[in-house]
Amino acid sequence: MGSKQPDRRVFLKRGAALAGGLTLGAVEPAIRQTPASGRSVEEQSQQVPDYSSDELIAYGQRSRFVTSVRIPHGGRPSPDAFGLVFHTATPLQDSVGVITPSALHFSNTTRGAFIPDIDPAEHRLMVHGMVDHPLIFTMEELKRLPSVTRLHFVECAGNRSNSRQTTVQETHGATSCAEWTGVLMSTLLEEAGVKDGGSWIVAEGVEEVKGASSIPMAKAMDDCLVCYGMNGEAVRPQQGFPLRLLVPGFEGIFNVKWLRRIKVVDQYYMTYNDYGHLRQDPDDAALGYQIGPKSVITFPSGGQQLPGRGFYEVSGLAWSGGGAIRRVEVSTDGGRRWMDAEIQGTAHRMAHTRFRYQWNWDGNETELLSRCTDELGQVQPTRAQVAQFFNAPADPSYRVPGQDNSIQPWRIASDGSVHNGFA
Amino acid sequence: MGSKQPDRRVFLKRGAALAGGLTLGAVEPAIRQTPASGRSVEEQSQQVPDYSSDELIAYGQRSRFVTSVRIPHGGRPSPDAFGLVFHTATPLQDSVGVITPSALHFSNTTRGAFIPDIDPAEHRLMVHGMVDHPLIFTMEELKRLPSVTRLHFVECAGNRSNSRQTTVQETHGATSCAEWTGVLMSTLLEEAGVKDGGSWIVAEGVEEVKGASSIPMAKAMDDCLVCYGMNGEAVRPQQGFPLRLLVPGFEGIFNVKWLRRIKVVDQYYMTYNDYGHLRQDPDDAALGYQIGPKSVITFPSGGQQLPGRGFYEVSGLAWSGGGAIRRVEVSTDGGRRWMDAEIQGTAHRMAHTRFRYQWNWDGNETELLSRCTDELGQVQPTRAQVAQFFNAPADPSYRVPGQDNSIQPWRIASDGSVHNGFA
Repeated sequence: MGSKQPDRRVFLKRGAALAGGLTLGAVEPAIRQTPASGRSVEEQSQQVPDYSSDELIAYGQRSRFVTSVRIPHGGRPSPDAFGLVFHTATPLQDSVGVITPSALHFSNTTRGAFIPDIDPAEHRLMVHGMVDHPLIFTMEELKRLPSVTRLHFVECAGNRSNSRQTTVQETHGATSCAEWTGVLMSTLLEEAGVKDGGSWIVAEGVEEVKGASSIPMAKAMDDCLVCYGMNGEAVRPQQGFPLRLLVPGFEGIFNVKWLRRIKVVDQYYMTYNDYGHLRQDPDDAALGYQIGPKSVITFPSGGQQLPGRGFYEVSGLAWSGGGAIRRVEVSTDGGRRWMDAEIQGTAHRMAHTRFRYQWNWDGNETELLSRCTDELGQVQPTRAQVAQFFNAPADPSYRVPGQDNSIQPWRIASDGSVHNGFA
Repeated sequence: MGSKQPDRRVFLKRGAALAGGLTLGAVEPAIRQTPASGRSVEEQSQQVPDYSSDELIAYGQRSRFVTSVRIPHGGRPSPDAFGLVFHTATPLQDSVGVITPSALHFSNTTRGAFIPDIDPAEHRLMVHGMVDHPLIFTMEELKRLPSVTRLHFVECAGNRSNSRQTTVQETHGATSCAEWTGVLMSTLLEEAGVKDGGSWIVAEGVEEVKGASSIPMAKAMDDCLVCYGMNGEAVRPQQGFPLRLLVPGFEGIFNVKWLRRIKVVDQYYMTYNDYGHLRQDPDDAALGYQIGPKSVITFPSGGQQLPGRGFYEVSGLAWSGGGAIRRVEVSTDGGRRWMDAEIQGTAHRMAHTRFRYQWNWDGNETELLSRCTDELGQVQPTRAQVAQFFNAPADPSYRVPGQDNSIQPWRIASDGSVHNGFA
């Protein structure tokens, strides 16, 4: 059927569960069933103790009925060989649209519970090394410079599914997307004046151990962003307040938080960030850091429950370090047939892209899959292809020694329960 | 100079204040001035009492150094003739990008501190009246239907500047923009089947007094959205959790919160929402509800202080009920000359659009203005034109009896202080 939408009139007719009971006979009880609506002001004031006047005026909160939260990714925070590792994963199963709320943006840091508590009035960014004019910026000075706003994902290279995980938060929760605002790295470097031979930058943040990254000059001058804004307000502490480097499409660890220094150098410098992907050739190493085309269905996904056969909108996210998503395909029969999903709105470069597919479930066990293609023509691989690339076992309980952007299968059981297809 | 960007290398040279002291001699003190970076884990753990482990894992918060908040719009909440009126305004002076953080989205309601505390499991939406199949939806059923995600502003018709206001939060803070996700009203109406003669809908929410709006069928079938998602999570209570109607480009009061009922009718029904703009012809009244093309500079804006002459990026927001913003012009000399500003990214229909203009302030007193043009060719008017339209006094202390989308002047004094040009 391609991406063509079916006749809208048939959603309810198709869905037995969805159509059940939706008749006018239920109107009166339903109206009474909206109790919050009918309560008097006096009653409500007694029943809403959580909404203080300050909260109402100053800074709003979410409903007490909304309990979607991040979970530890890769285990509870605990000391390891590198210090305090603290990884959290975004509840993608509850996501809508493409923005990840800042409060739910995943965060992987070695700083653990000791997020730097930086006073922006005292923070400085230094640009030095092989430059004509070494510079130091206050936050106020940075904010006077030409700025840009762009939607970008950040994904941890360790974000991958295995057979022991149940939910999409566990399998894919180490990716998030936000509207980032800041100054292009090229603006700062052009202002400082890069000397001949300055071919790399080392970006350093406050975070110990993994607080530095070597980035090729070509990437730095292309689209790297020194960000002070995130989703319309200041970058959050867990994301690097007051200043975070965005290296669009590169592995998450390159997006240095609490950025304080940019040094222009003439060669690749090895940092902690290179653990896990050491390669002989520095150019090759750097180019290998780009996040591959990847997608995942967020509804229905592992741990969720379909109430019965009928119509559902299958929805998910696709993204690639190679640019914009050009195509997303969905299979509802375990990969035998693939149909084009609808891409929501404009697919931005290196940004989460929402896709949707209209599906009528017949009630039989099946498997849902999604795969994406980016503007470079790169197609998301299967788990078998990824394993073959790394010369690793095809068994999905095995962790490949590199990025795993493989297709995620969700198995729908005949009782409507949804399971990790790798399990 | 049009929208062409000047040579990037000259930002610092131009700006005396910005360039001052930015030499390598200051490097060592500056590095030491980033104290949070240098503190030991033990020291930091003592100094960051606000970041509890739960907050770190579950749902992040903003930095304690970020204190941007909403303020009461039009006075503190107090009982009036209609009940408890509660209006808050967004801190646009701190805005970056186009998203308004949900916690800072303006909210005008008669419910005051008694925001409905609705359990989504009990909430229902009824679609009835002149339809073939009256329907009642649970939230779960709505979420199974085809959905869309769109960026839209909501603005209160009473959002206007006067001579007694100081900041852009006071003059323009009753507009905000979010990524909304939900079901098109047309999907629900097509499912129910609108009978011949069904030419209007009345949308009813839980809010007493102003909780209903009459909307022409053409608008309802075009782009109205029944939203459950906002900025990637559930709609916030102050915005209508669990369900809010979006009527893109219409006055804010049409965007019914805590939506529970949609009734198809054969004529215009007068509701509380028509206070303030009663007209004889219902069609004319409805068409008059569209928000006019409007823009405002958010930096520099009233109450802010420029540290001195030199380079600044002038930044602001433009929006229109008539569709996408096509052009924004900025004047830095009180309106004698107008230059094209740069529009950030894609200008979405009925959405805030960020514009930027690179300005070198010579240190003399002047006035900054912005005006926008939308895709219909509508140009934002001056205050004098708006006054003339309403046959009202040109004196900006006078409140015109309708929408005021006039050009906002910000006066820059020679000491760098910024003032409302109407004052």
